Parts: sequence; structure tokens; C-alpha cells
Amino acid sequence: MIGILGGGQLGRMLALAAARLGMRTHIFCPDPDSPAFEVTPHKTVAAYDDEAALAAFADAVDVITYEFENVPAATAEFLAARKPLRPGANALAVSQDRLAEKGFLASKNIPVAPYRAVETIADLEAAIDALGLPAVLKTTRLGYDGKGQRVIRERSEAASAFAELSPKPLVLEAFMPFEKEISVVVARNASGEVRAFDAAENVHRHHILFTSTVPADIPPGVEKHAAMLAKVIVVALDYVGVLGVEFFVIPGERPTLMVNEIAPRVHNSGHWTEAVCLTDQFEQHIRAVVGWPLGDPARMADVVMESLVGDEVRIVPSGLDGNTQPHLYGKTEVRPGRKMGHVNRITRR
Amino acid sequence: MIGILGGGQLGRMLALAAARLGMRTHIFCPDPDSPAFEVTPHKTVAAYDDEAALAAFADAVDVITYEFENVPAATAEFLAARKPLRPGANALAVSQDRLAEKGFLASKNIPVAPYRAVETIADLEAAIDALGLPAVLKTTRLGYDGKGQRVIRERSEAASAFAELSPKPLVLEAFMPFEKEISVVVARNASGEVRAFDAAENVHRHHILFTSTVPADIPPGVEKHAAMLAKVIVVALDYVGVLGVEFFVIPGERPTLMVNEIAPRVHNSGHWTEAVCLTDQFEQHIRAVVGWPLGDPARMADVVMESLVGDEVRIVPSGLDGNTQPHLYGKTEVRPGRKMGHVNRITRR
Repeated sequence: MIGILGGGQLGRMLALAAARLGMRTHIFCPDPDSPAFEVTPHKTVAAYDDEAALAAFADAVDVITYEFENVPAATAEFLAARKPLRPGANALAVSQDRLAEKGFLASKNIPVAPYRAVETIADLEAAIDALGLPAVLKTTRLGYDGKGQRVIRERSEAASAFAELSPKPLVLEAFMPFEKEISVVVARNASGEVRAFDAAENVHRHHILFTSTVPADIPPGVEKHAAMLAKVIVVALDYVGVLGVEFFVIPGERPTLMVNEIAPRVHNSGHWTEAVCLTDQFEQHIRAVVGWPLGDPARMADVVMESLVGDEVRIVPSGLDGNTQPHLYGKTEVRPGRKMGHVNRITRR
Repeated sequence: MIGILGGGQLGRMLALAAARLGMRTHIFCPDPDSPAFEVTPHKTVAAYDDEAALAAFADAVDVITYEFENVPAATAEFLAARKPLRPGANALAVSQDRLAEKGFLASKNIPVAPYRAVETIADLEAAIDALGLPAVLKTTRLGYDGKGQRVIRERSEAASAFAELSPKPLVLEAFMPFEKEISVVVARNASGEVRAFDAAENVHRHHILFTSTVPADIPPGVEKHAAMLAKVIVVALDYVGVLGVEFFVIPGERPTLMVNEIAPRVHNSGHWTEAVCLTDQFEQHIRAVVGWPLGDPARMADVVMESLVGDEVRIVPSGLDGNTQPHLYGKTEVRPGRKMGHVNRITRR
């Protein structure tokens, strides 16, 4: 019995993958309408700080994982004392805080954009002096899908950006003139096996992932380098599970890579694996967290994943082309900006 | 909400496919330990003749399908009066009775092995005179996995075979000197769209499917002919859903085909589709029964499906090769002869 914190679409897809491997899942989520509750009879509807509910959940499962990186540290600690928590609490600590994440990456010689910690408006002025403009001011915690960040193009915008963003502290990042964004989904299991899926080239729209195209249009050496950096990260974290690594590709005579961010979980930009890999990212994560050998991430075809956001979900089923595999998340209410599903489109066999 | 009669592995895999399409499932099964109960929170544990339970089940769902062909006729009739039952009751009537099935196929000029109805021992003697020996005596109803049949090689075995088999009536079939068995899984939806997966070459062991190999080692013309015959069958039945058709390949200068039997459901010999097709047989069945367009059954790689029966399941996970996708059914008790799971092995990309 695998316990999963979070009942959204990622938790749902993890539960479906676990079921294919003959395993049972128990979903813990405060929202009674969670999509993942529809794919298992075992659930807990409770707040993440409800210790009685957490204790009963831990008693009911053999291992615990999660679908989102913002699991409160106290929750992670409480659960990890009772049952194996995979990925571990250190992966959460690093990825929940942009400063900790950049500090960790830099300490492993993984290239990241130049940055400065910003606690006061004076810090921000000094950071602008050091990094130049444009630059991006971000909260260190709880940002996602473009929330919690502002681009500063003129020094006159600094004060309002500082005032607007919370919680503090913030971080100012140099604005990288990147050519494209790619990502690598990598897995490591408890025995230390490490395997990466092919890199995807990602396009965002309104800060939400719009398409992931595989193979990415990058030189083979750059793709190999991205996979290597992703593997270095999971080894350095003594990580167990699947991790998503987003990179900027910086143009140049030889394009270079910088890590934008890491996510200690299955990743939107890995949804394409379900259509064309013998082992998809969800199965790979389950294999890792239960102590199985990792599966084969090799890819059988070229593919584009397209997100279905809000009303776009209405193209299913009649607007689907051949060569297309839909995946809907079972959300009953369509809202603007809500991720409702995705499609995987085979572009070349 | 899709209602599924039967809570075994086929019902479970149908429920998982429905979930990927964003749909909910309600499983109806008398066995409280049904594997399919682990992949949805909606279930009814009741006998198939419990009309109160059937009525409540029908009220709770939008459409009803099933994982096994031996749904009692009264159950099918009761449900079909309340909600759409797909495939329809005529498909059940034909496939539940070997005589009705052979009569139907012969009426559509689909080749079947010569046969005679056997109600009395005198019928059996006359049938042996007509068909010769060896021949196979079978119950007309409730046979599966080799149960309910006996090969008669000598006339002296006739009386004991007749006495042993029940329920009566029986059917005697000429023993076909077939070279191999193949099967085609075909789908038809309510709009009349028809699509077939590639043929699989099947090997049985102790009357249980052991391997399905795709592509089958048969001439292209024979495979095309098999697909055509499968399509003729679903059109003739005005069928909605996925149907499995088993063929004998009879050797000769030009090999010919005879239909062994049909199954109005997803089929063991179609499990390979999950690994290498953009739309697998389970999704195809769900698409058909809910009124969606059919998906693309094209195959991305060569594959062998191997059943895991009884203790064989213990090869998972440590005995798995690369190139292998396991699928376990979540059955808690391992018993000899019990289908515990299967693996799909990619043999050529």
C-alpha cells in the first residue's frame, strides 16, 4: 500500500501506475473533490497538519510519496518518523526554497543563473547593481506556474515589485537570454540505479506548460550534458524517485545549459512518456519508491504533449486527430487556467 | 459513470483505461475480494440475480458493460431495460452458446470447423459417423480455459465423454489439424466505425493462454483476411465494444482460417496492445461503449505477451529483463493456475 500526499492529477496518475503494478494506493488530500479519489477506495480527507489523520495514514501504508513539492516540513518530518518517505525530506527542503535550491546546485557546480538574496529594498538595489537589468524578482517559497515573480526592466519598478511580492525573503535572478527551455525527467532508486528519459523541449503559455516536444531540437552533446547534470543532481541528493529538472539553453557558438529549477516529483513535461515509453514516468516513480529495479525509459516514437487548459478540454473526443492519445484528469468543473488534461500526439514512428 | 459487471483483471484494466479518459467506474461483482475493487471507490458486492442491487447499480451509472461473456441472460435483460448495455444482449446470447455461435458464424459464411449438436448418445454416435475421429466433444455453455471439453480419439471413449460432460446439450466438433492459432481483437462503435488491432499468434499451456506474439508469423494475406472476418462479425452483430476472435490457421498450399470462438469483451490475447499501441484494447472498448470515436490501433514495435500464472508472478520484479513491461492484477492470493499478471516484452522497435 503506497501512501500519496496530494490528490491532484499527478497523484491520480501515480495511483493508476501503481495499480498496473498490482499495488494499492491511499490518497491523503484536504480537498474532498480531489481527482485522485476516483481511482482508489482508500483515502483520507484531512489537513496536512492534522496529526491524528497523518498518524492513521502512516499506519495504513507501507511507504509514502507525494505529488507536490510544497509538503509542509512538519508534515514530512512527522510522516518520515513513521514510514519511509520517498523522495526524502532533504529533497523537499532544497526544492521548497529557491535560495536553498540555487545554493545546493551551485555547490555541486551545476550552472544556475546569477542571483542574489533580497531581504530588504537596499538588498534589491545592490542586487540590481550587481546583476543588471532586466532581472526577475521571485519569492523564495510557494511559487508555481509564474505566480510569485515579477520581471524588473527599469530601476523605477523595483520598489513596487518588492512591495508586491510575498512572502519574503525574495531572490533576484539575472534575466537569461535563453533560446529555449528543455527538461529532463530522471529517476533514481534506493539501490542507486539512475535512468533519465529523453529531454523534452518546452513551450509555456501564460506561465503554464503548453507543449513538450520530444526529441528536443538541440545538439546531441547538449542533450547528453543535460541528462548528465540531472543524474548528478539525484546522486548528490541521495534521491529516491523521479525528479524533473528544467534547463535554459543559452545560445552561443556552443549552446550551454543552466538549471532553472528542479521539482522532486513526476513532472508535467514528462507526460509524453506515457504514450511512447515502455516504462512511463509514473511507473518509474512507483518502481523507485517501492524498491523495484527501474524500468526501461527508451522511447518508441517522436511525440508532442499538449496541455489542455480550461475550455480546451472540450476538443476531446470529437476534435482529436488520429495519432493522438488523450488523458483527462476527471475534474468535474472546467475553470479558466485549470489543467484539465493533456494529449500526446505521435509525430513520427 | 461506467458500470462494469465483473471485478476480475479485465474489469480492473477497463476501469484503469476509463480513468485515463477522465471517466468514473462502478464495479458490480459478487466476490468481495475482486481485484477491480481496488481501482475505484464505487462498487456493488451482490449476486447477479439480486434485482434490488442491479436496479441501484443501473441508477448509479450512465452505461453498462461487462468483462465476461457468461453474464446471465436475465441479468442482461434486466439491466438493458434500464441503461444502455454495450455490447448488447444479442452478443451475449450468441457467444454464451457454442451452437448458437457456430450457427451464427456459418450463417454469415464465416468458416468454422464442421460440428453436430449432441443431445443423446445416439446423436453422438451419428456425429462421429459424420465427422470422423479424432473429434472434440464440448459443452455448449459455460466452458472456458479448456474446461467443459474432451477429445475423443477412439469410439470406445464416446460413452464416458458423453456421461462426464455437463450441462447438456453438447456439441461435437471435427478436430482440425491446425498449424497455429491466431486472434484478432476488433472494435466497433455506435457510429459504425470499425478498427482491428494486428493479429497475435497464440500459444496455450494447460489450456491457458501462455504467449501472444505480434506480428503473427503468417502470410500478409492471411492476416488481412483474419481482420476482414473479424470486422464482418462485429458488423453482423451490430456490435458496440471490443470483441476477440480466435482463429485456427489450417495448413495448405494457401493457409486457410477457421473461427474457433468469439468473446464479446476485451481479450487475453490483446494485452500486448497496452505496451505498443497508442490506443490499447481497454481504451478502445471504453471509447466504443461511451460513444467516442475509436482510437488509433497502430502498433509501434514488435512484442510478446507472456502470461504469469500462479507462482510465475514471483519473477516480478527482480526477474524482469529490460524491454519488459509488467502488469500485475493485484490478486493477494497466489494459487496454481490462477492468472496473476502478464508481461509485455518488446522484441524489435
